[in-house]
Amino acid sequence: MQFTANQICLLLNGSLEGAADAVILNLAKIEDAKTGDLSFLANPKYAAFLYTTQASIIIVNNDLVLEKPISATLIRVNDAYSAFSIFLEKYNTLKLNKTGIEQPCFIHPSAIIGDNVYIGAFAYIGANAILGKNCKIYPQTYIGDNATVNDNTTLFSGVKVYHDCVIGKNVIIHASTVIGSDGFGFAPLPDGTYKKISQIGNVIIEDDVEIGANTCIDRATMGSTIIKTGVKLDNLIQIAHNVEVGKNTVIASQTGVSGSTKLGQNCIIGGQVGAVGHITVANGSQIQAKSGINRSIIEEGKKWGGGFVTPLHNYLKSTAIINRLPELDKKIFELEKQLNQLKSQSNC
Amino acid sequence: MQFTANQICLLLNGSLEGAADAVILNLAKIEDAKTGDLSFLANPKYAAFLYTTQASIIIVNNDLVLEKPISATLIRVNDAYSAFSIFLEKYNTLKLNKTGIEQPCFIHPSAIIGDNVYIGAFAYIGANAILGKNCKIYPQTYIGDNATVNDNTTLFSGVKVYHDCVIGKNVIIHASTVIGSDGFGFAPLPDGTYKKISQIGNVIIEDDVEIGANTCIDRATMGSTIIKTGVKLDNLIQIAHNVEVGKNTVIASQTGVSGSTKLGQNCIIGGQVGAVGHITVANGSQIQAKSGINRSIIEEGKKWGGGFVTPLHNYLKSTAIINRLPELDKKIFELEKQLNQLKSQSNC
Amino acid sequence: MQFTANQICLLLNGSLEGAADAVILNLAKIEDAKTGDLSFLANPKYAAFLYTTQASIIIVNNDLVLEKPISATLIRVNDAYSAFSIFLEKYNTLKLNKTGIEQPCFIHPSAIIGDNVYIGAFAYIGANAILGKNCKIYPQTYIGDNATVNDNTTLFSGVKVYHDCVIGKNVIIHASTVIGSDGFGFAPLPDGTYKKISQIGNVIIEDDVEIGANTCIDRATMGSTIIKTGVKLDNLIQIAHNVEVGKNTVIASQTGVSGSTKLGQNCIIGGQVGAVGHITVANGSQIQAKSGINRSIIEEGKKWGGGFVTPLHNYLKSTAIINRLPELDKKIFELEKQLNQLKSQSNC
Repeated sequence: MQFTANQICLLLNGSLEGAADAVILNLAKIEDAKTGDLSFLANPKYAAFLYTTQASIIIVNNDLVLEKPISATLIRVNDAYSAFSIFLEKYNTLKLNKTGIEQPCFIHPSAIIGDNVYIGAFAYIGANAILGKNCKIYPQTYIGDNATVNDNTTLFSGVKVYHDCVIGKNVIIHASTVIGSDGFGFAPLPDGTYKKISQIGNVIIEDDVEIGANTCIDRATMGSTIIKTGVKLDNLIQIAHNVEVGKNTVIASQTGVSGSTKLGQNCIIGGQVGAVGHITVANGSQIQAKSGINRSIIEEGKKWGGGFVTPLHNYLKSTAIINRLPELDKKIFELEKQLNQLKSQSNC
Repeated sequence: MQFTANQICLLLNGSLEGAADAVILNLAKIEDAKTGDLSFLANPKYAAFLYTTQASIIIVNNDLVLEKPISATLIRVNDAYSAFSIFLEKYNTLKLNKTGIEQPCFIHPSAIIGDNVYIGAFAYIGANAILGKNCKIYPQTYIGDNATVNDNTTLFSGVKVYHDCVIGKNVIIHASTVIGSDGFGFAPLPDGTYKKISQIGNVIIEDDVEIGANTCIDRATMGSTIIKTGVKLDNLIQIAHNVEVGKNTVIASQTGVSGSTKLGQNCIIGGQVGAVGHITVANGSQIQAKSGINRSIIEEGKKWGGGFVTPLHNYLKSTAIINRLPELDKKIFELEKQLNQLKSQSNC
Repeated sequence: MQFTANQICLLLNGSLEGAADAVILNLAKIEDAKTGDLSFLANPKYAAFLYTTQASIIIVNNDLVLEKPISATLIRVNDAYSAFSIFLEKYNTLKLNKTGIEQPCFIHPSAIIGDNVYIGAFAYIGANAILGKNCKIYPQTYIGDNATVNDNTTLFSGVKVYHDCVIGKNVIIHASTVIGSDGFGFAPLPDGTYKKISQIGNVIIEDDVEIGANTCIDRATMGSTIIKTGVKLDNLIQIAHNVEVGKNTVIASQTGVSGSTKLGQNCIIGGQVGAVGHITVANGSQIQAKSGINRSIIEEGKKWGGGFVTPLHNYLKSTAIINRLPELDKKIFELEKQLNQLKSQSNC
């Protein structure tokens, strides 16, 4: 995908300095940029790179004063950083703007397909599935029977959506993530074996959610596992059956949430955290990476950490002392010795 | 899928009260049920919902006495809970009862395919692979050369079974799980690089096993990695090469077991546990979530926890004290001070 | 795949003892071997198995003296262990030596495909993608637009390589691993929602890298996430955006590395480790499984452990004392009591 300085300038409503027909193919930081790259200068600390960068076009602030001539084409705007961000988003949207249906793919005759979709080769869309308009279903994606994917949603290659699950609008799900696999429910029998408990619920993912790659969200035993509007989940996360993740909550990679637990709104949960089942976590809770949430958190908006969550402040203090335990151990030994000496002295 | 009250009543050998032609499409809890749902009442605590629920059909105990008329059709049985469970299982089996071969799929001419199978579109069945009768191979699943999948087994969409691996009867494997990837074996060379050790063994999964989504089970270096009869593995689990998981052992999500370790029978292993390689864990061991099994466990049937496993009871006691370390630290400091005062007094 | 004793003997430059037309299909340890297996005897401890094994052919050292006649064909060589290793590698290479293009697959007309490749059914190769010679692209693999896969690289079934990513030579990537999914970058907005930050960089995987199954490597926000030459990554690993993993570094399963962190060369990182973002880890660092790398490590070639990394030696000492905390707690209580007694005595 290529753009001329003129096109970018019009898009950003800037003023042009240099060759209007300069062409860029990629975007890069000013210190890394090569010929054919668009870059920007916002932070004056990086000004020296203006004179050494090989970028073909640079977005700069209106008030920038050049100390010597440069070869790149400049586009002057009010705020170089936000102008670059606007272009970056535009660039990425255009780049990923696929439409059309590639063959072979499998679309069940009973499926309903919205306008202006992209369906990649080897994608599978099951019986009575519904696909909203402007959806992008990348190659090798699976949408099971009776599943619904709403407007403007992108499922990258290899995403698997089991039957009956519902995905909202403007959702992005990355490659090989699994939505709606069976919850992990088994009843122990007297002979030591386990009997499977049928998992007949589904998963509901609301609007504006983004989910990383190779994440798993299990279907509910009955009812729904629910990921609320605006939630952001990273890669390799485990969400068990009947869990509810509250609005705008963000969870980092490799965290696991056990069955029926309800996470509040606007929580920030670090990576590799584990939460036990059947608890609730208050709105606005922030959980340190690697913590174990072993009980409900009632107070809103607090920071927590540790294998058995405690207030983060306490946790950090206790952990610091753990490394001093050999020293404390010696001190106790020493105290015992001295005390015994004193006692024998006072006895005699 | 729809059922009439009459059909359900015959299936459960119950007696009908109300409209015999009432129809249900889904199953739901009595407090959530809508028109077109089947529900049940077993626990008297929920009896009030009888009069407010919108469920079309409700399974109740024979001895239930109504306090006022209700609109739903009732099916009276001896034990409402177990009758509902029986129907739930029946419903789910019918729902997932796919058969036939969808096109396009890839079946190598030398593969042997049993009767009454389902093979979804874009599934791949390699040379000399064997597929037993009544198997369900969902779309985009891969069964490598010489792999065997025995009767009544279901592989959901995107499961990858490498060459030579063997899957038992009545096994369920969820989406995108990988069976038989190479074990992680490399020999360090003097120049700091690593030489790959060929992994020519396989994975054997015995009967009645269920495995979650995005789990990985590596093939043995030589011989087999073995998952014994009745084992249940959750999502995102790592089973390394030459591991053996004993009969009816259950492992929760995101746990990892390192190479050549042998887990006993009927163990219960929590989530995010890690086990080092080349150890054995005794039958019936129960391991707290997030623990590190750093050594063999010899005694059968005990509970363990902690980063370096210790008996759970000790671990919980020690952990409780960790949060009091700042206080203990202060006490030691205080004791030292007082002791020094005493000593100086006794010296004078 | 079958070999005769004669073929193996020629390949290993050995001398034959017994039936030259003995045939093997598989390789096995001498204690497990069955008819049709090739085995070896290197360690004299296993010599007794020579007389009980059912192996059809056994590779032995030149100086082996038989105590009684055996039925297997022997191949005598200088070093039985290394001869077996050579054959094992040969065997595995032949076994996985697929070529040709299976149908249906999707190869965009603008893609460039090298000589002698294997492309499995349902593989997808996007616009302007480049595939080097001798590559093996297993079924259901996805190579996005403008992605490059260099010579002699194997991508097993279901690997997903996003657009613009670059994979080096002699790389092996196992099933369902995702290369180039979006980094986890969101800007918080005043109303509690998050705005996605476009991730327009890529992933570069250099030569001789091996990556396990269901691992995730996110694309850079801008620039590249880089996995350097000779790196070995296990299954279910998370590598976040803009991370750099140094040459010949080895990482075990389920470890996660947060954004922009740089791991040095020749590090050995255990399983289930977490590293925070924006730090550097010195060359040759060795990190205990389950550790948390919460800060940069400057000193090269040291061993570290613990939730907040400390030198391994300290960590192990402190951890040992954690289990004795209930005892220490009691001692402190006892000391306080005795001290108070002493004080009251000395006061009177």
